[in-house]
Amino acid sequence: MVAHTVLLDFTVPTNQILDIEKQANLKSNITNVLKEHLVGLKHLTESSIDGSLVILFSGPKSSLITVRGYTEGLVTVNIEYYKPDDEEALLSFESARDLETALQAVTSATRSHTLTPIKRGGPFERYFPTADERLLEYDIDKLVFEARSPYQKVQIVHSKSLGNMLILDELQNMSEADLIYSETLMQRGKECYEDKEIVILGGGDGGLLWELLKENPKRVTMLEIDDVVIKACSQYMRSVCGDCLDKRITSKYEIIVGDCVIALNHMINEGHQVDYVFGDLTDIPISTAPHGDAWDFIRLILNSSMKVLKPTGKYMTHGNGASCPKSLKMYEEVLSQLCVPVKFTKDEAFIPSFFEVWIFYQVSLK
Amino acid sequence: MVAHTVLLDFTVPTNQILDIEKQANLKSNITNVLKEHLVGLKHLTESSIDGSLVILFSGPKSSLITVRGYTEGLVTVNIEYYKPDDEEALLSFESARDLETALQAVTSATRSHTLTPIKRGGPFERYFPTADERLLEYDIDKLVFEARSPYQKVQIVHSKSLGNMLILDELQNMSEADLIYSETLMQRGKECYEDKEIVILGGGDGGLLWELLKENPKRVTMLEIDDVVIKACSQYMRSVCGDCLDKRITSKYEIIVGDCVIALNHMINEGHQVDYVFGDLTDIPISTAPHGDAWDFIRLILNSSMKVLKPTGKYMTHGNGASCPKSLKMYEEVLSQLCVPVKFTKDEAFIPSFFEVWIFYQVSLK
Repeated sequence: MVAHTVLLDFTVPTNQILDIEKQANLKSNITNVLKEHLVGLKHLTESSIDGSLVILFSGPKSSLITVRGYTEGLVTVNIEYYKPDDEEALLSFESARDLETALQAVTSATRSHTLTPIKRGGPFERYFPTADERLLEYDIDKLVFEARSPYQKVQIVHSKSLGNMLILDELQNMSEADLIYSETLMQRGKECYEDKEIVILGGGDGGLLWELLKENPKRVTMLEIDDVVIKACSQYMRSVCGDCLDKRITSKYEIIVGDCVIALNHMINEGHQVDYVFGDLTDIPISTAPHGDAWDFIRLILNSSMKVLKPTGKYMTHGNGASCPKSLKMYEEVLSQLCVPVKFTKDEAFIPSFFEVWIFYQVSLK
Repeated sequence: MVAHTVLLDFTVPTNQILDIEKQANLKSNITNVLKEHLVGLKHLTESSIDGSLVILFSGPKSSLITVRGYTEGLVTVNIEYYKPDDEEALLSFESARDLETALQAVTSATRSHTLTPIKRGGPFERYFPTADERLLEYDIDKLVFEARSPYQKVQIVHSKSLGNMLILDELQNMSEADLIYSETLMQRGKECYEDKEIVILGGGDGGLLWELLKENPKRVTMLEIDDVVIKACSQYMRSVCGDCLDKRITSKYEIIVGDCVIALNHMINEGHQVDYVFGDLTDIPISTAPHGDAWDFIRLILNSSMKVLKPTGKYMTHGNGASCPKSLKMYEEVLSQLCVPVKFTKDEAFIPSFFEVWIFYQVSLK
């Protein structure tokens, strides 16, 4: 049960809005077409905001129809109603496009467009943004798990094409179709992990740990703050993490639930150095000790990580979407201003559940 | 210059809408939060549709804010305004999420969600549907070509990640990143085209013709109805079609601009048979002689194609998105009921510009 919002828009000559006579004509034309397509349409009210036109109608299925005519020469038509699961949609994409064609003709529109109906509410979210904040509707059909941890809202939903997906604070994180993410992050086939000592910062989904363990490392320590994420993934993302999240300590690895900043400081104080540190934290920092903005946090993590790396060690991390060159450039500037000089290489991969190319960094001490 | 529509929604206890006192409280809470986030907010009007709440406000940048409270326990907030290119957005995705957090608190919402601002109007479309009618926002940044042919609206737009894209009647068709489409359609590496005689039905983008010519066929005949598509792709999709659309006839191929149904009938009457027929038409039939619905057209094309195939010949075509099992099943039923018995194999590939897995059929005579 969700509300449907159907959005149509029409580019029209500006005089259709600015000229009083033409505007009256436009209003009556739009009203007539809407009446033909929406049985029982009723005029509710009319208004004007700084010269732009606003008309409200009610329609079938208790729908609210908002028509707005902007003085810049754009008419938007929004139709919104509540759709119970067992009822037909008032407007399918096809019938909305028929309405568009009819409205296009009477508004003298030079262009027009209809969006597939937007679903709002219901037990799970369907819309997630790309790195450059474009809207994507996923084929989610089930809420598998939901809990609010002390740090974030943790959800696992099921996508028809991607399998189960981990959603943190309503942002898409990792799906069962994303092996390439872990493989590019760890540079499988290019880096040798045999007998190496490794620290993972974050990585609560267990995907990276599971793939690293296949390479026979000496020991992996995973520092993840959110136990709820670990438990949820252990249960519902097993094609990603195998059984590695079932135990918290074995001869090959240890999962420490806690703030990685504190654990890193502890390692620094002890002079404990490792071969690889993986930065597999979420983009938005969740630390028990907040440290200013996101970039300050990234700087802190990087500087601390450098101090626990052997001189031959590497810091491996995800950057951002290839669609965000400014953010990537900023990251590279941060790298050039660390407490120690570093050099870096980059790799990229199309991540199925991100629907975009992602950039990964491999940072080593100069 | 586009209008922005910012959509937020909140799942609330139903008594927040149904109980008159609670509803009054909800209204005043929402109004107060909106006032804090949208300077100069003005109450315009208020209404009720079958017990559901409707409040209208005007806000900064001549925005219209529509709040609707459904009796089923859902509150939607829609904020719409016109945004000139040189002005900041009234609400970025980030500030819209801040507004969501504030509204979530005062509405006792058990869940809430914010969509990235939807852009409406402007010189090019950004939103195209998947096969299962999900909404995708593409990273389009330029209208490269636009014309209305006798058959359809033909546009070429530029995507930052996919290169140029051919859009037909506002539906996404083919991008410069889609070599895999032609390669899966032709089953590159699995079929041998050397010295073979081939007919392409449709294929106006030239991608298939260009790839087939690399395999040294005896002769390819392409039957495309829309000269505007050919000319546009020849100019703006050259990484897809090379120079093969520059000439209409060479010793290796011929491009015939016309209705492929008529050309197929002509071949049948002449008893002309070939090794391969490619069905590379758009999903929505555009023929000078309409033949009932889309499935009737598909049936007609298939039956005609079978008649021009040598006994060893194959009919190669695209099916539909893997997300549309019903439509694929229907297609396979059509195959089982042709004028001659056929057998078929299937293949699939993720098509970058479709953002989904597509199914391809290889049909041969039994």
